[in-house]
Amino acid sequence: MAHLEGLGFVVDGFDRGSYRREDPVEIARLRALDDARALLIVRDMPVLRNTANGFDSLMPISEIEALGGARVEALLGFVANGAPIFVALLPDEAVEQRSDLSDGFLDRRILVVPGREDLKLIDLRSVAVGGLVPHQQAAMLAAAKALMHWHARHGFCANCGAPSDVAAAGWRRDCKVCKATHFPRTDPVVIMLAVEGDACVLGRQPRFPKGMYSALAGFVEPGETIEAAVRREISEEAGVACDAVRYFASQPWPFPASLMIGCFADARGRSLKVDRVELEDARWFTRDEAMALIERRHPHGLTAPTPVAIAHHLLRQWAYEGVKFG
Amino acid sequence: MAHLEGLGFVVDGFDRGSYRREDPVEIARLRALDDARALLIVRDMPVLRNTANGFDSLMPISEIEALGGARVEALLGFVANGAPIFVALLPDEAVEQRSDLSDGFLDRRILVVPGREDLKLIDLRSVAVGGLVPHQQAAMLAAAKALMHWHARHGFCANCGAPSDVAAAGWRRDCKVCKATHFPRTDPVVIMLAVEGDACVLGRQPRFPKGMYSALAGFVEPGETIEAAVRREISEEAGVACDAVRYFASQPWPFPASLMIGCFADARGRSLKVDRVELEDARWFTRDEAMALIERRHPHGLTAPTPVAIAHHLLRQWAYEGVKFG
Repeated sequence: MAHLEGLGFVVDGFDRGSYRREDPVEIARLRALDDARALLIVRDMPVLRNTANGFDSLMPISEIEALGGARVEALLGFVANGAPIFVALLPDEAVEQRSDLSDGFLDRRILVVPGREDLKLIDLRSVAVGGLVPHQQAAMLAAAKALMHWHARHGFCANCGAPSDVAAAGWRRDCKVCKATHFPRTDPVVIMLAVEGDACVLGRQPRFPKGMYSALAGFVEPGETIEAAVRREISEEAGVACDAVRYFASQPWPFPASLMIGCFADARGRSLKVDRVELEDARWFTRDEAMALIERRHPHGLTAPTPVAIAHHLLRQWAYEGVKFG
Repeated sequence: MAHLEGLGFVVDGFDRGSYRREDPVEIARLRALDDARALLIVRDMPVLRNTANGFDSLMPISEIEALGGARVEALLGFVANGAPIFVALLPDEAVEQRSDLSDGFLDRRILVVPGREDLKLIDLRSVAVGGLVPHQQAAMLAAAKALMHWHARHGFCANCGAPSDVAAAGWRRDCKVCKATHFPRTDPVVIMLAVEGDACVLGRQPRFPKGMYSALAGFVEPGETIEAAVRREISEEAGVACDAVRYFASQPWPFPASLMIGCFADARGRSLKVDRVELEDARWFTRDEAMALIERRHPHGLTAPTPVAIAHHLLRQWAYEGVKFG
């Protein structure tokens, strides 16, 4: 997928080994292997190790116990050379909040592992945007973070309220009271570029960096197709009626556990009615403007998301290559 | 989408009115309108009314109280003429299990509403396959069933174990103890036809009707793209390595709450290694055989799914029109 160069959290050649999850003896054997490694998550953040060559998120298994033991552990899968990769959710108490005065005047709150200057907690979005770890590690961290976010917020059985137990090497939770089984959640989200002739619709949420516009997005609801969700979201948020919808590509987006489904939508016209509850603004951009956003030379200083996000690739594909419907 | 003729649970022109869910006064006003109607769900089954013209699932709102009141109610949306459609989850006790001796010798257990000969409970799969209600009603029932299945099994907060409350006109559950908010779950599932030259892979699960083969399928996991999930599932279940993946179409599949994402996968060769835990069988079918399956004239009596299922359309598209990758 050369046209998706830089798309974050996407990796091939990682074997999840899902068929091996049901055998606790095998899991213990894999965990004891010399080449086994662990990704560490605490308070929704990955733990990185500062090395001479930059950051590394793959830790020796022994770090799990050194940092207070795991609340939950999972077998994430196997890298190409066969080494098993685990993920451990550390207790919240493994880290402390401190003031970061490193830039001299701005008092930011950061998380630190007490007594471990070699470890650093950086939110996964910044890790990916900054390219702080190899692409494959960022992708493994995405799966790790989404899975551990689910465990952290699903300690109880939604069916009966009893505490539930981790099962299947971290990929299931079982309730011993009502016998319900619970699987990790992945929320499908449509993210779409509505286009009409030489223009497309972008919007901005209040939380976006200043001047950034992106593709609109929203959750797929029960009983809805991808295509219907695209049409509904673009209509609700921007008042744009669309006909044909064309799938483009997908991306895991672990904030907290979304599957981004990127699509183009064929707009009927250039009407616009912005939902000011959801969006700070939305507008039509010409193809020339879209190129200027991507190339960071827009006359008003506006920008588009970086290549980490699928929105960048939707915009790039349409601006430079065009899109055909039907 | 003429090429998806008969695809079940898919409808356009139904307005979910999601922006109106937060106003309880407005919801009460809509519910009191003369043209408001309710879909009824009990024990995962839709309640149908027997009329002179066949079955109807749209009931007067008054039926909710007549049948014991709702455990949960939701505003599903609005049909084209603006009439609001609600869905009510009835208490399990609203129905009784009886023996069905209607065919003279086979004792099947069925659910009935005591004293209401005009009402019938039929599982939604049979409703759709049999075309028992208009296409749009089946699609609304899919959303209704998925949403009510979620409520029925999520009465407690997964974060703290306390009972949670219905909010947002039935589209959210709030925990007043830990303040967590919970949204209905939709599970993305990939369903794929791996093809190589003039052949494709189909498999059968033990629960399938005798002789039926279908496209393979599996849940998308946290941190996984649609494309990676397709390649993983076809590799795990059938031992077939695939390169390019092409999206085809999507379908809500409320058993219990899936979003089926239909794809084609470009197989590297015709190897096969069937996972006998997941599948009873899998095999390569030629294009001629695929046509015979669809047209119900396969020499060994084998069949493919009906047009209700997206698997039918994947197979039909490939067999009669072909598929291009890249």
